[in-house]
Amino acid sequence: MKFATLADGGLDGRLLLVSRDLQQACDASDLAPHLLHAVQHWAQVAPALQQRYDALNAGQVAGAFALNTERLAAPLPRSPQWCDGSAFLNHGRLMERAFNTPPIPAFDTVPVMYQGASDDFLGPRADVPLPSEADGIDFEGEFGVVLDEVPMATPAERALAHVRLLVQINDWSLRALGPREMKSGFGFLQAKPSCSWAPVAITPDELGPHWQDGRVHLALQVHWNGAWFGHPHGREMNFGFHELIAHAARTRRLSAGTVIGSGTVSNAARERGSSCIAERRVIELLDQGEIRTGFMRFGDLVRMEACGPEGGPGPFGVIDQRVVAYPPKA
Amino acid sequence: MKFATLADGGLDGRLLLVSRDLQQACDASDLAPHLLHAVQHWAQVAPALQQRYDALNAGQVAGAFALNTERLAAPLPRSPQWCDGSAFLNHGRLMERAFNTPPIPAFDTVPVMYQGASDDFLGPRADVPLPSEADGIDFEGEFGVVLDEVPMATPAERALAHVRLLVQINDWSLRALGPREMKSGFGFLQAKPSCSWAPVAITPDELGPHWQDGRVHLALQVHWNGAWFGHPHGREMNFGFHELIAHAARTRRLSAGTVIGSGTVSNAARERGSSCIAERRVIELLDQGEIRTGFMRFGDLVRMEACGPEGGPGPFGVIDQRVVAYPPKA
Repeated sequence: MKFATLADGGLDGRLLLVSRDLQQACDASDLAPHLLHAVQHWAQVAPALQQRYDALNAGQVAGAFALNTERLAAPLPRSPQWCDGSAFLNHGRLMERAFNTPPIPAFDTVPVMYQGASDDFLGPRADVPLPSEADGIDFEGEFGVVLDEVPMATPAERALAHVRLLVQINDWSLRALGPREMKSGFGFLQAKPSCSWAPVAITPDELGPHWQDGRVHLALQVHWNGAWFGHPHGREMNFGFHELIAHAARTRRLSAGTVIGSGTVSNAARERGSSCIAERRVIELLDQGEIRTGFMRFGDLVRMEACGPEGGPGPFGVIDQRVVAYPPKA
Repeated sequence: MKFATLADGGLDGRLLLVSRDLQQACDASDLAPHLLHAVQHWAQVAPALQQRYDALNAGQVAGAFALNTERLAAPLPRSPQWCDGSAFLNHGRLMERAFNTPPIPAFDTVPVMYQGASDDFLGPRADVPLPSEADGIDFEGEFGVVLDEVPMATPAERALAHVRLLVQINDWSLRALGPREMKSGFGFLQAKPSCSWAPVAITPDELGPHWQDGRVHLALQVHWNGAWFGHPHGREMNFGFHELIAHAARTRRLSAGTVIGSGTVSNAARERGSSCIAERRVIELLDQGEIRTGFMRFGDLVRMEACGPEGGPGPFGVIDQRVVAYPPKA
C-alpha cells in the first residue's frame, strides 16, 4: 500500500491512499483518520485499507482525484519518536575527517544513533525555515522505517516483523553547530532542525525484491539547484534496519509510529556522488586539496527522489523544496 | 493550578485537577480531555480550569475524591519532545570525572542538552522495567518545565512567558552505557530509558517566590531503599530555564507540550548529598579514595520529593517506585 497525508491544519493531517503509480489518490480517513492512527491500529485497519488500495489501482474508487503533492504534509507530520542511525559507514568515516572528531568507538560493530525531534516533520514541498546561513545549512538524504509497537529488548532477528512502512527523509543538518554538540557528548540538538519527508510512505511489499536484508535496494537521486549531486545506493548500508531497531529497543519499548532512520545514504564509489554537502566538501579536500563547495544559501532548492528499480520514478515521490530565512525578511 | 493524569488505558490519560494540599482531586476531562490538550489550547481552557480549581480548594466540587497516586500516569504520559539540559555544572564536572570523558567545550557559557524519548513517560508509582542490572541502573532527580508553542529563535528574555507547567522528573540512566554513547558524539540513547514523573504538574504561580530567575527554589529530597541519599537545592542551577528554552529553540520551533529538563539537581556542598548514584560514587572516589556504592538492583526502591518551602510536603507529590527486571522472571 502507498499512503500520503493531506495537510488539513491539524497535528496529524488526514489519511490518503495513493495509487501505485502515484498519479491518483483517495481519502481513507473514514478507515483511519490519519497515518499514525493506522500504524497504531494496524491489524484492525489494514484489511480495509488494502481493499480500497486495490480498488484505487483498478480505477474503481469513485472519489479518486489526481495527487497534488503541494497540498501534502509529511506522511507522519509528528511521530512518537525519531531515532536516526548512521549506518552507512562510508559517510561516518568521511564526517570524522570533515568535523575533525575522534574515531567513534566500535563504529563497525555497534550502530550509532541519535534521538531527534519528532514533533514537527515538514512536507515534501514545504519551505524550510532556518535562522542563519552561517549555521552551515546542509541536506542529508536517507531512508527510514515506521514501526508498530516494539517490545523492549527485541532482538534483530525478530525486528523486521515490526516494520509497517518505508519512507524517504531529508534530515536537515547545520554543520557549523554539529562539531561542538558532538564534542559535548550530548549529541545533536541545534544541529538537527526539523526533517522533511518525501510525500509517500509505502508498505515493504511494494518494493518486492528491492526490500532485502533490512535495506532499501534503490538509488537516491539528489539534485541541488537543478544540478545533479549524487545517486548513492541503499544496498551499501553497513547495518540493516533490523540491527538499528534492535539497537533502539535495547533498553526501552518503542511506541507504535516510532521512526528509525538509516543515516545519510553514502557509497564508497566516488562517481556516485553524495547525498549531503559536507561529504562532498571533505572529498574535495581529500582528492583536490581544497574545499570548493559552500553550504546552502536562502532560496536554494534541493530535490531528492529514490529511483525506481529500472531507473524510472521512485516509490516515495519527490522531495522538492527551498530553504528560506526565519524570521522572514520584511 | 495543580494537575494530575488518571491512567485510563489511552495514550494521554484523563485530566484531573488536584487540590493545593494534594489531598483531593476532581475530573476535569470535560474542560480538556487530557493535560497535553490543555497545554495545546491553554488560552481557551485555562479560565474554566482555574474556576474549577478554586472551587476544589474551597471544597465546593461535588464529585471530588481523595487523590490516589497509585492510579496516576505521568502528568504527560507522552509529549511531543523532551530536551534535557545539564544545567547544574557541579553535576557535569563530577560526571566528567566519573566517566573519564574530556571536558565539555564552553560548558560554562553554552548549555548542554540531549534529546530524549518522550513517547513513554512512566507514572510516579509504576514499576520501572529494565533489561539488566549490569547496565548500571541509576536515578537522576530533576525539575522540568512544560511549554506552550515556542517560535524558532525565541530569545531567553522572552522564554519564560512560554512556561505553562513545572514538573519533577526522575531521568533514569544506565551508567554502563553512557560513556560509549558520549564518545560516539551522537549522545545518549540506550543510556536513557523512559523517565518517570512525580504525580502533580503545577502552574508557576503555585510556587510564589520559589519560582525565581527561571529556577525552582526548592530542595529535592531523595531516598534509596528508605535511606536518605540527598536533598540538593534547585537554586544552584547555573543556567535558568529561560536559557535552556532559548537553547532548544535556536534552530527549531518547539511544539506545545515540549518538556525541558534541568538535568540532575546537584549542589557543591557535600553535606547536601546527591540526586544520582554516579555522583556519590565519584565523590567517594575523590574524598575516600575508593568507590563504595554500587548501582541499583532489581527490587530496589527510589523515592523523590521536592520539599515545600518550609520543609513540609512538596508541590509535586512523591515519586516512589521500584526497579524490576524486563522481561519479568517466570
